[in-house]
Order: sequence, then structure tokens, then C-alpha cells
Amino acid sequence: MKQFQTLLYILLISISCTQEKEVVVTGGNQHPNLILTTKSVSEIKSKLGAIPVFDETLSVAKATVDAAIQKGIDVPIPKDMAGGYTHTQHKLNYANMQKAGVLFQLLGDDKYAIYIRDMLLAYAKMFPTLPRHPQIRSYARGKLFWQCLNDSNWLVFTSQAYDCIYAWLPKEQTDYLNKTLFRPYADFLSIETPKYFNRVHNHSTWGNVAVGMIGLVMDDDELINRALYGLNKDDVDLSAKDNDGGFIFDKDGKAGFLANVDSPFSPDGFYTEGPYYQRYAMYPFLIFAEALQNKKPDLKIFEYKDGVLIKAVDALLNLTDADGEFFPLNDGQKGMSYYTSSLVSAVDIAYYYGNQDPRLLSVAKKQGTVQLDATGLKVALALKEGKEKPFVKESMELSDGSKGDEGGIGILRYNNTEETMALVYKYAAQGLSHGHYDKLSFSLYENGDEVLQDYGLSRFVNVEQKNGGGYLKENKTYAKQTIAHNTIIQNEISHFEYKYDLGSKNHPEKYIFDVYDTNFQIVSAKEKNAYPGTEMHRTMIMIKDEDLKKPFIVDINKIQANTKNQYDLPFHYFGQIISTSFDYKIPNKLKTLGDKYGYQHIWNEASGKANAESIQFTWLDNRRFYTLTSATNKNDELILARVGANDPEFNLRKDPSIIIRKKNTQNTVYASIIESHGTYDPVKEVAVNAYSNFSKIEVIQDNANYTALKIHFKEGKEKTIILSNLDSSQSKEHSLNINNKNYSWKGSYYYK
Amino acid sequence: MKQFQTLLYILLISISCTQEKEVVVTGGNQHPNLILTTKSVSEIKSKLGAIPVFDETLSVAKATVDAAIQKGIDVPIPKDMAGGYTHTQHKLNYANMQKAGVLFQLLGDDKYAIYIRDMLLAYAKMFPTLPRHPQIRSYARGKLFWQCLNDSNWLVFTSQAYDCIYAWLPKEQTDYLNKTLFRPYADFLSIETPKYFNRVHNHSTWGNVAVGMIGLVMDDDELINRALYGLNKDDVDLSAKDNDGGFIFDKDGKAGFLANVDSPFSPDGFYTEGPYYQRYAMYPFLIFAEALQNKKPDLKIFEYKDGVLIKAVDALLNLTDADGEFFPLNDGQKGMSYYTSSLVSAVDIAYYYGNQDPRLLSVAKKQGTVQLDATGLKVALALKEGKEKPFVKESMELSDGSKGDEGGIGILRYNNTEETMALVYKYAAQGLSHGHYDKLSFSLYENGDEVLQDYGLSRFVNVEQKNGGGYLKENKTYAKQTIAHNTIIQNEISHFEYKYDLGSKNHPEKYIFDVYDTNFQIVSAKEKNAYPGTEMHRTMIMIKDEDLKKPFIVDINKIQANTKNQYDLPFHYFGQIISTSFDYKIPNKLKTLGDKYGYQHIWNEASGKANAESIQFTWLDNRRFYTLTSATNKNDELILARVGANDPEFNLRKDPSIIIRKKNTQNTVYASIIESHGTYDPVKEVAVNAYSNFSKIEVIQDNANYTALKIHFKEGKEKTIILSNLDSSQSKEHSLNINNKNYSWKGSYYYK
Repeated sequence: MKQFQTLLYILLISISCTQEKEVVVTGGNQHPNLILTTKSVSEIKSKLGAIPVFDETLSVAKATVDAAIQKGIDVPIPKDMAGGYTHTQHKLNYANMQKAGVLFQLLGDDKYAIYIRDMLLAYAKMFPTLPRHPQIRSYARGKLFWQCLNDSNWLVFTSQAYDCIYAWLPKEQTDYLNKTLFRPYADFLSIETPKYFNRVHNHSTWGNVAVGMIGLVMDDDELINRALYGLNKDDVDLSAKDNDGGFIFDKDGKAGFLANVDSPFSPDGFYTEGPYYQRYAMYPFLIFAEALQNKKPDLKIFEYKDGVLIKAVDALLNLTDADGEFFPLNDGQKGMSYYTSSLVSAVDIAYYYGNQDPRLLSVAKKQGTVQLDATGLKVALALKEGKEKPFVKESMELSDGSKGDEGGIGILRYNNTEETMALVYKYAAQGLSHGHYDKLSFSLYENGDEVLQDYGLSRFVNVEQKNGGGYLKENKTYAKQTIAHNTIIQNEISHFEYKYDLGSKNHPEKYIFDVYDTNFQIVSAKEKNAYPGTEMHRTMIMIKDEDLKKPFIVDINKIQANTKNQYDLPFHYFGQIISTSFDYKIPNKLKTLGDKYGYQHIWNEASGKANAESIQFTWLDNRRFYTLTSATNKNDELILARVGANDPEFNLRKDPSIIIRKKNTQNTVYASIIESHGTYDPVKEVAVNAYSNFSKIEVIQDNANYTALKIHFKEGKEKTIILSNLDSSQSKEHSLNINNKNYSWKGSYYYK
Repeated sequence: MKQFQTLLYILLISISCTQEKEVVVTGGNQHPNLILTTKSVSEIKSKLGAIPVFDETLSVAKATVDAAIQKGIDVPIPKDMAGGYTHTQHKLNYANMQKAGVLFQLLGDDKYAIYIRDMLLAYAKMFPTLPRHPQIRSYARGKLFWQCLNDSNWLVFTSQAYDCIYAWLPKEQTDYLNKTLFRPYADFLSIETPKYFNRVHNHSTWGNVAVGMIGLVMDDDELINRALYGLNKDDVDLSAKDNDGGFIFDKDGKAGFLANVDSPFSPDGFYTEGPYYQRYAMYPFLIFAEALQNKKPDLKIFEYKDGVLIKAVDALLNLTDADGEFFPLNDGQKGMSYYTSSLVSAVDIAYYYGNQDPRLLSVAKKQGTVQLDATGLKVALALKEGKEKPFVKESMELSDGSKGDEGGIGILRYNNTEETMALVYKYAAQGLSHGHYDKLSFSLYENGDEVLQDYGLSRFVNVEQKNGGGYLKENKTYAKQTIAHNTIIQNEISHFEYKYDLGSKNHPEKYIFDVYDTNFQIVSAKEKNAYPGTEMHRTMIMIKDEDLKKPFIVDINKIQANTKNQYDLPFHYFGQIISTSFDYKIPNKLKTLGDKYGYQHIWNEASGKANAESIQFTWLDNRRFYTLTSATNKNDELILARVGANDPEFNLRKDPSIIIRKKNTQNTVYASIIESHGTYDPVKEVAVNAYSNFSKIEVIQDNANYTALKIHFKEGKEKTIILSNLDSSQSKEHSLNINNKNYSWKGSYYYK
């Protein structure tokens, strides 16, 4: 029977070359079997019209592809950078082909198959003639695009389209396409570009998956193995590095897809490059996992490394603010959120292959669109049945490092019905080539707005006028530098002297993460290597006091050094200054703060001395009043600064900061309170609680063993915080006399 | 019978002093009769529970006042500036009393009357002991507040509360309050403060209305006449000016409420101070009009000056962006919108006393709240019946000047379902003491976002830390100066040399306003007095071309002078620069652009020469791409500037601008295209139409009679615009030869 079908099929296809309209699709081959399968197609078709979110998604895809078909096939000779015409057209092509494949399978209309076939034939004709892309900006130039990364995108999506029409195409055509286009393309991305293919890096993951996906479609085991395990080591120079500073093989000498799961993911699902690139890599990670699960179920890829791929989706959703935008840790473009298509795919796949977590459905509901396969079907059905539960983001720690022992990210959150706050404390490892030199830095969010920012990257992704949409040089000269972050800079030099090798060898050490008491959530970590001879120990506490409406943050930065240094601690706020407790002078001419490590990009708008044991700085942003209260020495300098100097292309945002500078200092403590205390309503013209709730913060003791602070509320109340600096055990008993008062407690901190 | 009732009433009230709970409210006097009336109270009571918006508003008012009653009466000795404790408390008191009066009438619960009575007795006890307010910042210090303006607010609201309990109070108490508190307060605000009371100014309107409202409550005709017609001239020094630079009597020597209707309102309902102050003044204008209509219907106040008070509400609603925020013309705080309570009142009163315009209902629906009187009842009933129609803001001209012959505001709008654009062109008169020196300036809006801004005022209203919430000195040194606006500055000197007397004597002249063709909307005006010997003629055109998705703006600034000058034309954009067609240099140190007329507040971030006949400048803001294309001479300078210099309190926003500078030039034309052409999506990371649709704009002829331009589209299309500079007649026939081509047309402009 099957043989007969195959025969009939070949016969019909042969006819189809001259009489396209009359082609009948039939079986005889088990394609599709990559993402869609013959089984899932049949199941979806039986439900079409009764699964609202799925139906809507399909209808949007149909409108898009129908318009593209109407416009005609356009396969231009590659020429432009990102954002330019040929770049954009080839991107459109793979996206439309992938959708057309789905439409062909689900709607059964040949025009979609024809569209893909004709497009692929055009590519097959052009491909053998292509040199590497004429734009020479990448270490791994592609064929259709300026970098292999985009070529891999093309192949990952196009493989799915190809799979959808594989059975419909006559064997001569699949043979032709396999031989002329796909196998050479896979070899090009791997064997011919080892520095690209064999790294542990999100780029390489795309490369691995591109090769793996097309390998699965063609049943080419050599390609599948190459995708999973990387290139043969004999073919590669193990000491070579790419131009981003990354190594070609990871520390363990492994490569390929599985190495890219093993190494950058921590057991908690945190991806060391940061959420922006995790978001980008989630698509190839999960779509390939889905394909492997369909075709190589014995691999049990979703159970690999204790199910890390599913955990990674949860981690990623937790690395967003109240609006679903990713925290821009390391290189991250602001505004990217879980509404992006790779997260639609990720959420659906995690729901299907995980434990059908109903919280994922509420994210899917917000996304309003699903992946057009079995996973999206399941999500759409569950949404139809109203199974979703809110995705409440709780405080959590996400460890970094493949074994989870290389620091991490501590997120302290406060949620109530009206507002949320999120403190993101970064004591993670370097994060590969997209990592920033920002040990123990943090950022603060309120209701989806940035309060104290991480600058993110310096790039306008896909805006051609801005360096072809690629990274701007200010990414290295400013955005990655330490001064662009809310953390300590010693002697105006970035952490690890901005050396990638050094940064990659080290990581901070977690000291405390304790969020058991939601009114006193604490995270603490130490960094001993960013500046040799200097130990930085930062503790951040989110305290919800019964007398205050919102929580406040206590920030304790303890520094112990073996020489005297200058320390800068910037706070990158937004908005307008409302008041300062200290005097300052403004210059007639603006000068930069320094000439390297990012300081050359910062204007000194004003500076003054603390002249007091505690200073206050109040600003207004997003209709809210914020105050920084900080313990100071009288000689501490306060610098009001703004980004924007030495920026000939106006690439940088002109964002402000306040810097607390301690000169000629060996051991010290920066102790600060950060609070959101009031609101301004420009319609009612009413300022509510425009003043800080605190009068000052005081360091009442500081030595190697203990650091003790006193917080003075404006209304007279006082609270004491004592940290044990050397023993973080929860059971250890401490007792201490400070100013003739005895304090006894158990565990690593005291608060009363 | 009536006598008996009165007797019974007095008897019961006498008892009430010891047995408050048992007081029975009864008639015997026709109060309330000011805003609420016995008739409207009875009508409202019959509908309560079945008028959703009204019921909700009442319930919010009840919750607010109940909480205030719970907290207890607090009438502190006046001490603080705006934003401070005593200021805020006295504001709360009058707001709560006014609401309590309504609650007493509508719900019949004595506790509200008692609350008002006890509060008034506390004020009556304190008032005679009060000197003028200890804060000496105002030219007209109040008693409870630092300025009489706020005291007038107090009296306008408190009069309503008093009216609501007047009949409930024993006559001894009303006599006592009238004599001890209210009549002295009215005299204080008028006779004792003539410089405040007798001006034509929004402040004085509040003063007039305060005196008039309490006069109506007390049936005190002397006060009512004083409110309507001002002080007796014999008592006032006619040549004196207040410290804002305003005159005590207006040009015609009239004063009082009617003068404040006559003079600042144009026949179109535009209020010369601008929308921000119109919004503020609408409440006293309309609430007093309502009271007069209730008690002095013969005055036919709503028909006064051809019904200008109702027209003014329509004008004001049209002076908002897509979000309902007022255009910040002259002194205006951004963010103020038609959601403010004075506009709730204005919309309801205009609906009731006007022609029940159903468009007003859609605004009321957005506001979600109504005035708690007959007008609010009518609106709530109409909303319940679904009578509302959309308030679509069309292109319109609003004349300025009491006779409508002193220039005006031209608003060109483009609306489609997805997006709106609004160009606001200001050729209005000086606008009294809150006026800016910004002849022929404009601002541009898209979808409620500012594209090219009017800076607005420099003030943080009611933020105590910022100069007590009052105007900041940068309001005069920057915000009011010409350079803070998108218009021509000659020789770095503000219009009229920033002299109020000069500015007040002159106004631009309207030349063309024609929006008949929605695809070619044109507004044009001339200013001959801002710089003696120089005529400025600016024409702005909003063109919707069939080939472009959105309209573009053509901006033609023709200058004719009798000497050579330097001209600056700034465009105050927001966001980040994407590309420039011209080269520029950035300095190592930032210097200011100048040392006076606002230039001292501007940093020169970069400057270069055009070196071409046309320049382009593209920026990205709010995820949209904009381009300015401008015809230049090769020697024209381009300056990339930013506000913020010489700003010791950090009062100014650090906003950017591009300035086109022509040096040593006599007659010239600035011709520019301003376009919104593309979008950026940070989630999809896609830039759509990131490049301008135009290649250049060219001045092909310019003389006293005609100015002709050629617009070059990037795709090759060309369009010619010719303006007749001296004859704006629609019927005049013109013919002209330019570069050997003949052009013939009828009317003041040609476009083809």
C-alpha cells in the first residue's frame, strides 16, 4: 500500500511540473517530521476554527504570506548590512517560507508549497555562485548576510519550510536541493567557518542548530552528529580566539549543541550571556530540542542536564520587569520583551514538553499568539479552557556557571496589587564575550520603569544608519565599562582592567541569599579579583517597614584593600534633580571626568563635598520622588555627571548619574538607603510625600568581622543592621558590643 | 406657614447645640441657591442610585469626606509655601467643605453640615487675628496662603459649602460668619488688595469670583457689583503695574469679572494667556456663571459676548493633543490635561447650558466623573442613555484678541484610525504676563507625543523643594525666551528685546488659514514688530501625498530686513540622532552658545557647516524616525545644542535642539520639510522606512512678491510650491516664469 502511494505520489509530482494546479498532496513519505508531524498536522486540522488564539495566529500568518506571494519572489544578490535592503529581504524570505510551510500543511493549498519550492530553486541557483558576503565587518562573514549568524537563522527557518514540502517535492528536486543548496550550506556554516561553529556562544548555537535541523530533514547523520558534538578537534586550532575574545572550544574542550547546553546554562536555567542573548538563543535551543524529540526521542533532550531547557524558560520569564521587558544585563537592548517571537515559541514548547505549568498560559495569553504546531495547539486549547494562572514573579536567585557555582543573579521583589519593585543584583560570572565589567552591580525597577539603570548595550539593532545595525564602538568604550554600572570603580579603572581573559577566569562569590522574610530580603556577595589586593563585599537588603508604604533598599558596599585608592560609586538615575543636601559648584565649561575606561564619555556637570556625615539626593522621575541617603565622610566628593562626551556620532544616551567619590582611602563602607517615597500628579498638581522618610544612615561599627549601621527615620524611629562579614552561617551565634550596647543574635545578620 | 417653619427651625437649631444628633433640617430659606438649588437637589435625590457616573462620583466624594471627618478638623496657623503642610491642609479643607456641602444636601446626613459649621467657626475665630501670610514672595500675599490667588480658591469653594448649610445654620451663626469671616475676607481680597483684584488676569478672575460667589450667598449686592465690575476707579492708581508686569486696569480701563470675560477671550473662545491658564480660569468663569444663571438669570451670562464662555470650553478641548493634554503654549506645565477637575466642571456646565453637544459627552465619559449638581446629573443621564459622540479634533483657527483681530493659533491636524498628527502654529498676541516671546513659533505632535516641542514653563507646580512650587528663575531666563521655541531669533536677541510693554503692544498678522483641502492644509502669518526693520513671514503646510503613509510639513520662513543680521532657527526635537548629511565637530569642552536671552543656558555640543544646498537630519524618538530636510546656503552653520548650562539648581530639562544659523544675511528664506517617516520596533528589532522620503528641498525663486520651492522626493517625483507673499486673496490670478517655465494659478498659493 505504502509503495503504491509513493508511486502515485511520484507520478503526480511528475505531472505537476507542467500542471501545477492539479497536484494532489499525498503521503508515502513520513515528512513533515521535524516540527510539524503528520500526526500533529492531522490533529490540528481537526481542531481548526475552534481554537481562537491558534486560529488568529494562523490567519495573520496567512495574510502575511499571501501578501508576500502577491508581491512575488525576490532573491537579491547579497550586498547590504543589517537594516539594508538585501539583508531585510532575505530575512523576510526565510520567515515567509517557514510560515508558508505551515500554511501548506494545515490548509493544504499548493500555492504555499509552490512559493517555497520556487524560492528554494532561486536560492539553489544563486548559492553556488556566492562568495562570502561583500561587507567585511564580521569575523565570520556569511553568504546571504554579513555574518554567518544570520545565515544560520535562514537555515533554521528554511529547514522547517523544506520539511513541510519535502514529501510534496519530486525526489529529483530534493536530491538537487540537498546537494546544491543545503548540504553545502551546512558545510559552509560548520567546516568552512570553524571559529563560528565551534564556540560556546549564542551565535554558535544558531550555527549548530542550523546544521542539525537541515541534517534531520535530510536524515544526514553526519550533519546531526556535527551539530550535537561540534567539529572534529583535529580540524581546529584550539588556542585560537575569535575577534569577540571568545575561545573556539569551551574550557572542557567540548563543542556543538550539547556543549552549548552544558556550559553556558547554570542548573537553574540562567544563561551566562544574559537574558537578551538567552532570549535570542532560546529559539534554536528549543526548536531543535522539539525536532530532536520528534525524530530522536531516545536522546531525551528535554531531560538533558536535569531538564535545564525547560527551566531556562522559567528563568528567562523571571528575568523581566513588570512589563515583561528583559533586564538588560551584559549586552542587552532595552525594550526587548517576552512578546518577542522566540519567547512565544519558548513558552509553548516549555508548556508542552514541561509539566503544563498554568502560569505559562498567562504569559501566552498576553502574547496573544502561539507557535503553529502541536505545542501551540495545546496552549491554545488550554487557554480556551481558561486554565491559565498568573505568572507572579517572586524573589529568586539564579546561579551562574555550568555547575551553578560561579555566582549568580539575586532578584529581590516586592509585589502588591498596585505596584511592584524589583532589585536585580548581579554577582554573575563574565558572561562570555557579551559580558560587561560590572561585578556586584545592580539595577532597580518600579512598575516596569527603570529607577536606577543598567545602561545596556550601545547599539541600534538593525538600524542601518548606525554602523549597519551592529555594535557601536561606544559599546566597548562606554557601555561595557564598569563606570556605566551601579558599582564600585577603583582608581578610575574598570574591573579586571577590562581584560576579557582575566574576567573570564574569575567570578564573585555568593555570600547570602535569604528572602524567607518578605519584609527583610537580603542578598550579599563578594568580589576579590576585579582589583587585585582589594575585596569588595556588597550587601543589598529590601526592607518593608510597617510604617512605610513601599519597601526601601539598604545598600552596603564594604571595601577592604591593601593600599589606598580612589573609589567611585555611581548611581545611574533618570529624571530631574529635586534637591540635594550638599552644596556643589557648576562649571562654566563642561569637562570630561577622565580619559579612559568610559570616563572620557562622562561630563562633570557639578561637583561638591559632602561636608556632612550623611547626604541626601532627591529626584523626580516617572512622576515619582526618589531619595538616595548615604553615609559619607566630610571629604567625600559628590559628582553630578552625564553621559555624552567624546561621542562623535551621538550614539550614547545623555543619561545622568550621581557619583560618590572617596579619595585616598583604604578600607571603607558605602552605606546607602534608596527609596521611592512619593508621587507627583501633573493633572492634580499635587506632590505627595515629596520628602524622604529618613534623616540619615550611619555606620556605627566596621571591621573585618562586622559592619553595623543605624538607620534614622525622619519620625525618630531607629533601626540597627549588623552584618557578619566572615561567617554566613544561619546557625552561628554572635554577640557584639557597640557604643556600650550589647547585641546578640543568631545567623549572618541582625535587624531591629 | 413659612414663619412658623422658620421659627421651628430656629428652635431646633438652638436645641442642636447640645443634641446635635436630633437636628432636623427644614426649609424656611431658599438656600441652597448658588450651584445646587432646592429644585436640583430634589431632582438629583430622585435619581440617586440609577445614574452610574454620578453615583460613583458621589461615592468617591463621600469616602473622601468621611475620611476627613474621621481625621478631625485641622485649621493650622498659616506658615508654609505651596507644597508645604499648612498650604496643603487649607487646600484640603476647602475641597472637603465643598464636597461635604453637596453630601449634606444630597444625602441629608447632618454630620456633613456639622463638619462645615465647625470648620467655618474655626476659620472665623482665626481670621481676624491673621496678618498677611508670613511668606513674602507674592505681590499679593494672602491670609491663609502665600498668595491671594489661593485664598480666592478657598473662598470660591467655601462659598458653595456655606450656601449648602446656610439654611441649616441659625441666623445668629450666619450673621456671625458673614460679619466676622466672609465679608472681611471679600474686602481683603478686593479693596485691600487692588493690584490683585482689579487686573485682567486669571488670578483676578479668581478674586472676582470669590467675592462674587460669597456676595451671592450673602445676597450682598455691593460685593456682587464689585465682582462684576471691579473696584471703584477712584481708589486705584491707574498707572501702577504689578510685579508680573501686568497693568491694574486693562486697556479700556475696565475691571472685574465681565472685563475678564471681555478682554482676554477672543470671539472664538481662545484665552490669550494660553490653554494652561485658561484651564485654570475655566472653573471660576463657569462656576460663577452657573451661580449667576441660578440667582441672576436676567444677566443672561451664558449669552454674554455671543456665548463666549461656552465657546471657550470647545476651544480649550481643541487645544489638546491626542491624549487630552493641553498644548503648553506660553507658561504651561506639561501633563496637564482635560482630566483635571476644572475641565470636568467646564464640560458639564457647557453641556448643560450650551446646546447639549454630544461630543462633550465622550470627553465626560473619558473623565469618568461629573460635577455633583444639575449639570453633572444631565451629563450622567445622557451617558447612561449612550448619547455620546466622538470628539474628533479637526484643523481649526482660534483667533486671539478680544475682537479676534490680534493673530491667533492655527492648528493643522491629520487623523486616521491609527495615528494623528497636530501642528500647532502660534501667531497669537503676547498673552499677558504669562506670555512667551515666541512669535510665529510652532510645535508638532504625533499620537499624543511631542515631536518638536514648546518647552513650556520652568516650574514644578506645588513641589515645595523647587522654590516653594512657584516659578523658577529659569522661566524668565530660558523658558520665556525666544530661543526656547521653534522660531527665528535675530542676532541672539529675543523678540521685542524681551520687553513686556513692547510685546503687549504688538501681535503678528494672520495671512492665510486654509484647511479646505485636507491634503493641503496651509497657515501663514507675518510678524513685523518683533525686530524693528525686519519682517518675518512664516508659512506652514501639512501635505498628505498619495504616495506617503503620513503627511509631511513644509515650513517656509521668509525674512526681509533692512540690515544684515544673524538668524537662528532652532528645532527642539527629542530622542537620539540617527544620521546627519553634514559634517560637524564635537568639542573637548562644552561651552555655552551665548550669554543672554536664554543662550547662556544652552551647550554647544557640536557644530558644522552645511557645505551643501540642502541638509538632512534624522532622529529616532518614541520608536519613530523623523527627518528634517532643509534648504541651506553652503555657509549656513548647523549647531547641535542642548539645554542645561548655567542651571545651578538643575531646574531645566536637558533637551536637545538643532539650530540652523545664517550669519551676515539680510533677506533670506528658511525652507524645510519635517516628516515622520518610519518606525522602530525593539521587540521585533525591525526598522521600517528608516530613511527620509525626500532627497532635498530647493528655493527656486524668492522675492518680495513670490517665494517658490521645489520638493524632491527620493523616488524622483517633484512638487512645486509657490506662495504669493503680498496678496492672500483667494480670487487673485497670478502668473510667473521660473527657470523658463510658466506657472499660472488663482489664489495665494500654487502646489503641483
